[in-house]
Amino acid sequence: MNDQNAIGIDLGGTNFRLGVVSHTGEISQRFVSEVGKKKTPDDIVKLLTKHVTEIKNKTPNLKGIGVGIPGIVDAETGVVHSSPHYPEWSNVKFKELFEGAFGMPVSLDNDANMVALGEGWLGAGKDMKNFVLLTLGTGIGGGIYCDGKIWHGDHGFAGEVGHILIDFNGPHCNCGSRGCLEMYASATGLKKLIEDSGDKNKERFLELVGDNLEKVTPAFLYDRAKEGDIFASVIWKKFGSYLGAGLASIVNTLGITNIIIGGGVSRAWDFFIRDTEKEFKRRIYKRTSSLVKIHKTALGDDAGIIGAARVVLKTN
Amino acid sequence: MNDQNAIGIDLGGTNFRLGVVSHTGEISQRFVSEVGKKKTPDDIVKLLTKHVTEIKNKTPNLKGIGVGIPGIVDAETGVVHSSPHYPEWSNVKFKELFEGAFGMPVSLDNDANMVALGEGWLGAGKDMKNFVLLTLGTGIGGGIYCDGKIWHGDHGFAGEVGHILIDFNGPHCNCGSRGCLEMYASATGLKKLIEDSGDKNKERFLELVGDNLEKVTPAFLYDRAKEGDIFASVIWKKFGSYLGAGLASIVNTLGITNIIIGGGVSRAWDFFIRDTEKEFKRRIYKRTSSLVKIHKTALGDDAGIIGAARVVLKTN
Repeated sequence: MNDQNAIGIDLGGTNFRLGVVSHTGEISQRFVSEVGKKKTPDDIVKLLTKHVTEIKNKTPNLKGIGVGIPGIVDAETGVVHSSPHYPEWSNVKFKELFEGAFGMPVSLDNDANMVALGEGWLGAGKDMKNFVLLTLGTGIGGGIYCDGKIWHGDHGFAGEVGHILIDFNGPHCNCGSRGCLEMYASATGLKKLIEDSGDKNKERFLELVGDNLEKVTPAFLYDRAKEGDIFASVIWKKFGSYLGAGLASIVNTLGITNIIIGGGVSRAWDFFIRDTEKEFKRRIYKRTSSLVKIHKTALGDDAGIIGAARVVLKTN
Repeated sequence: MNDQNAIGIDLGGTNFRLGVVSHTGEISQRFVSEVGKKKTPDDIVKLLTKHVTEIKNKTPNLKGIGVGIPGIVDAETGVVHSSPHYPEWSNVKFKELFEGAFGMPVSLDNDANMVALGEGWLGAGKDMKNFVLLTLGTGIGGGIYCDGKIWHGDHGFAGEVGHILIDFNGPHCNCGSRGCLEMYASATGLKKLIEDSGDKNKERFLELVGDNLEKVTPAFLYDRAKEGDIFASVIWKKFGSYLGAGLASIVNTLGITNIIIGGGVSRAWDFFIRDTEKEFKRRIYKRTSSLVKIHKTALGDDAGIIGAARVVLKTN
């Protein structure tokens, strides 16, 4: 049993990543490609089946396939209830569809949960009993890792920490609420922070992108901060403060004292983390704050593949 | 083993409650009394020992004693780190102190956790696998009940849901933060809501208490609402909305879909619950909201005693 492999798939809104993962967590046959414009469940199944079939034909001891999917996923039933990147999906029985097409056992979970499983196995969380993972991207993903497993709650949607409240009257969020953490501490949030800023350097900054806010990606804002742009730094600091306030709510609720942060937007770590820690400390009992540690993810973009494969490899 | 009894103690800031609980959850020898002015750990131990000794002398098959204490309690080590009602307490080894004085095994936990255990055993949660319990009083207590046990997190303080953020720039809270749920949906919160209200009926309402806001207890506000006072109703509705927003953050994080609400302030249930549900639904994914149920506690003031005894009775 001990030299088995699994395929891990990390499905994003734009790209998907796929790899063969050994029982020790090594990745071979790594693929990264675009999802493309066809995005119905059948399109996705067809797209992934092509790659899976190729791998199956040349890989021995393949135990199964794990797939991380952005959205509200019921890991137990294998149903994807909804996905922010695939708005037309509704209650799609992906486990059933995938197993039919792949001819192998398939485990499904939310993408951030898969990242948490990867980090818990071989990454920043490998020596932690419990941790909360946040992925900062277009939105915010979350995973609650307890004792080697993901805490799913009653119907699979636990860990939706991007929708923790920051401001009762804040900007409207896709989830239907207002002032969610995701409206501040994500790529979407960065744009809102710029939009709402009254900073005197804003105008000069916007000239850099011809007054087109859509051009301000997190990477662009990160590069400007590195170059010493004051406005970019101010925005990252605000981003950091709001993130810290959100973490305080999460820690007060869960009582978990290790937090792991990843996702593309977290690359600007050095420009926001001090304000995150400062705001966090301000917003939580002193004793609690002294126990909490905030960590970076360690596995980078591979975490989702590794975690998805892990689900398959660790089952008996 | 099956006809054992335990003593359950529910220590509040003003009163304490104490009872002998049978293995089926029946309470005999119930005491309710004031804590009094002497509030050092030694005073509390002396006070409770008097009652415990009396009971010990006349109660057969006494297995041990469970004590619920308001504040940050480490149930594993039996240390009370801090308590909002006993500000001078700091890292008090209450389990050790009690066991020395009582001459029996003692189990300690946060008071709201004990209420959750009671409700989970014989109350509103008796058929639920998981639930979140909130006690609305001077502040807000919280307990996370998973599969018959309390989720304590890494260091015992999980479930501090009164300190979930409602408004980044809201009123200052004792915990050091601002805009915590407790600043809106508790007795403390009710006063703030009245203070900050711009409602045209406020002045007339305040005349009822000679402009002394300190006289506005939750019971007073409840009675006025029952009499049809418009301003009192408006305040309860606001209270309800903020509670609903807080519950959305809690449910998004924990993914637990049964919520049980108790505590003295919840007696005004009929005047706030509709707004709680409305605001909650507005602030959470539709599918999630359709799964969530909000319940009242069922055991009233006895829940804390019953839960505290339960901890003792169920251990082998």
